[in-house]
Amino acid sequence: MSDVSPTLDEFRHFREKMNEAILNAGNLSINRFFALDTRTYEAGALDAKTKELLGLVASMVLRCDDCVTYHTVRCREEGVTDAEFYDAFSVALVVGGSIVIPHLRRAVARLEELPEA
Amino acid sequence: MSDVSPTLDEFRHFREKMNEAILNAGNLSINRFFALDTRTYEAGALDAKTKELLGLVASMVLRCDDCVTYHTVRCREEGVTDAEFYDAFSVALVVGGSIVIPHLRRAVARLEELPEA
Amino acid sequence: MSDVSPTLDEFRHFREKMNEAILNAGNLSINRFFALDTRTYEAGALDAKTKELLGLVASMVLRCDDCVTYHTVRCREEGVTDAEFYDAFSVALVVGGSIVIPHLRRAVARLEELPEA
Amino acid sequence: MSDVSPTLDEFRHFREKMNEAILNAGNLSINRFFALDTRTYEAGALDAKTKELLGLVASMVLRCDDCVTYHTVRCREEGVTDAEFYDAFSVALVVGGSIVIPHLRRAVARLEELPEA
Amino acid sequence: MSDVSPTLDEFRHFREKMNEAILNAGNLSINRFFALDTRTYEAGALDAKTKELLGLVASMVLRCDDCVTYHTVRCREEGVTDAEFYDAFSVALVVGGSIVIPHLRRAVARLEELPEA
Amino acid sequence: MSDVSPTLDEFRHFREKMNEAILNAGNLSINRFFALDTRTYEAGALDAKTKELLGLVASMVLRCDDCVTYHTVRCREEGVTDAEFYDAFSVALVVGGSIVIPHLRRAVARLEELPEA
Repeated sequence: MSDVSPTLDEFRHFREKMNEAILNAGNLSINRFFALDTRTYEAGALDAKTKELLGLVASMVLRCDDCVTYHTVRCREEGVTDAEFYDAFSVALVVGGSIVIPHLRRAVARLEELPEA
Repeated sequence: MSDVSPTLDEFRHFREKMNEAILNAGNLSINRFFALDTRTYEAGALDAKTKELLGLVASMVLRCDDCVTYHTVRCREEGVTDAEFYDAFSVALVVGGSIVIPHLRRAVARLEELPEA
Repeated sequence: MSDVSPTLDEFRHFREKMNEAILNAGNLSINRFFALDTRTYEAGALDAKTKELLGLVASMVLRCDDCVTYHTVRCREEGVTDAEFYDAFSVALVVGGSIVIPHLRRAVARLEELPEA
Repeated sequence: MSDVSPTLDEFRHFREKMNEAILNAGNLSINRFFALDTRTYEAGALDAKTKELLGLVASMVLRCDDCVTYHTVRCREEGVTDAEFYDAFSVALVVGGSIVIPHLRRAVARLEELPEA
Repeated sequence: MSDVSPTLDEFRHFREKMNEAILNAGNLSINRFFALDTRTYEAGALDAKTKELLGLVASMVLRCDDCVTYHTVRCREEGVTDAEFYDAFSVALVVGGSIVIPHLRRAVARLEELPEA
Repeated sequence: MSDVSPTLDEFRHFREKMNEAILNAGNLSINRFFALDTRTYEAGALDAKTKELLGLVASMVLRCDDCVTYHTVRCREEGVTDAEFYDAFSVALVVGGSIVIPHLRRAVARLEELPEA
């Protein structure tokens, strides 16, 4: 990754530590939102792979690097191939424009950290 | 639709008329962008249905009603069922938050204009 | 309101009709989100009036007219005075910049529809 | 314009009426912001025409139709030609992506209401 | 904080150094904006604590980490408790969706740097 | 620059390395977008300097630090003076509001790395 991005391990460590702190604070709305967030990507009428691709593209056009990292990992786990990733990236790029490019660069750098199945 | 939204016919008429005016102006960058926009949703590593769902969710989290209308029509043409639409909507809602809701309402109103295959 | 904005009655009618259609579709994630959305504004460590002001300013900087209309009505019900509304508007304007102004105009037009208690 | 957009006259009337209501409310921060907003587009190191083009492109990528209408009128007053408008639009489109297109359509419809000098 | 976020001291040092460089450049519009920005959070019809909470939630839904850091510090100075912070966070999360979560994590990490009064 | 921003050299190195990886992946839509992105800033009805200023302000209101860095470098190459930069910044600040300020700070830090011609 870029010299100033966290490694995947640093990202995971900070994410887990802070998620735990947030959930332990005991705010009911926040805790329910976190549960709902997890549940939404479970297979339903659309399968988990498609939902993760939707989450990835939504994260990319909204330009959230941490969200892109998370869904890139999950997409890989669901078997998304490199060619499928790039097809999803192309939709995000055309919908969101050139301001998506810096996030695309970081997404591709993450992808290089995750071996194709 | 809402009393203040255009009908689907009004939307299509205005869209086609203005697209024609834009393309006739002869700006090379803009014309190439329009060609690229169309091309991006053609089947590749991902099929056209999945790409249209990606376009729909991207449009919804970016809160672009005209874009949502366009991709809702295209998704229906690609055979997206009501249950699949709602699954896609749920991802957009959770990623984008309650500010997505007014656009969800208008998307569902559009969906009611388009009979399930 | 503006010649092209719905009246408050039209807004309420469309909102209720579409919310009903959405909830009847039976998507569990979406229905839980709607329940959570309502719950979040109930009095907790912060009172309902403060939470509604937070919702109003969040809606304004994100430039969601329907959300602004909803929270303007709710703020009025919680006793927010005109001077307090304008103080909240000033924060939204300075944080979000001049692109907030068209939404401020429509918020003030809504406010004129809602008599001060 | 589109069947659901206000005419230029309706836009101007609503804008002036609500600006007057806002300024009359006497909130010091808001009134200073409005004065600052006007002042910022006056000629300085950059001339007024360039500043209005900057305002136009900023409004377009942020997808604010009322702001686009305002700066389109001002750009025309500063002598911006159709070819210059389209060059500015092309930058907005490439930076902001296809979600800019609906706003581009409405900008071009406005442009047709304003004769080239 | 995260391995890649600046410490609170680094944030303050960079902020003060660059603010000084910006103000010394002598651009009248920019300097007036900075003065207006400060003034807007002074107590008026709403007290300073409420205004800082509004600034915090606006910053969070717009996903500006530096702005969130600034308003978190100011909210603490105005006596906002942990439970009140989490209530404000819950509004930001529900309005802005899961893309707010990475910023929420960083806000909570900042909060841990600032002892409750 | 800030302790956590990449240096200009790090930025350029990461940008070139990842652009190469992206283009080598051979996705036609993405590759055409990159070509179109470059082409759009070439002199046309508007000269290259004005187009780069448009790209800079668009990047700033959309709050993309990498894009701001890129256009700041290009603007300097086109002979934009410090006073002209600050005039462009003032438009971005007023249109986009105080959430632009952290990006303005980083833009000014970049400017200090690039000697005035």
